[in-house]
Amino acid sequence: MEFVDALGYTAGLLTTLTFLPQVIKTVKEKSAKDVALNMFLIAAANQILWIIYGVLKNDLVIILTNVLILGLSLTMIFLKLKFGRSSV
Amino acid sequence: MEFVDALGYTAGLLTTLTFLPQVIKTVKEKSAKDVALNMFLIAAANQILWIIYGVLKNDLVIILTNVLILGLSLTMIFLKLKFGRSSV
Repeated sequence: MEFVDALGYTAGLLTTLTFLPQVIKTVKEKSAKDVALNMFLIAAANQILWIIYGVLKNDLVIILTNVLILGLSLTMIFLKLKFGRSSV
Repeated sequence: MEFVDALGYTAGLLTTLTFLPQVIKTVKEKSAKDVALNMFLIAAANQILWIIYGVLKNDLVIILTNVLILGLSLTMIFLKLKFGRSSV
């Protein structure tokens, strides 16, 4: 693996990790009433744009990073719809 | 401008916009006691990695997006150090 790819994957992993605590917190607490659904809908749309950009640029780092983050955003949207009104 | 660049700049602008509300809220309320300094330090380091990646890949979209977000992260670090203990 070239240096530039290793650097890219490190950056991508770090970016993904910043989104993980929110998902873990929501899964653990089974509550998402304070979480803004719109934010994750916009984030998911944004990640789809980045994935298309990555495909057109043939940039696997951009594609993989955004596929992972899109997975987390979709998880949050699912959790919001499931736990949004509950505060258990 | 090619379609791929227009798409990239749209994605970059959208990503930047998701960080803006926190900065505006902190500037307005002059309080940052609930804001995690570590999060913005890690985010700033991450954006520097992305900028280096963008430079090595010669990808202006990645560079500009992360320069903008780095500016917002550094602003948040400054605001946290300034208002972190105050709740005025």
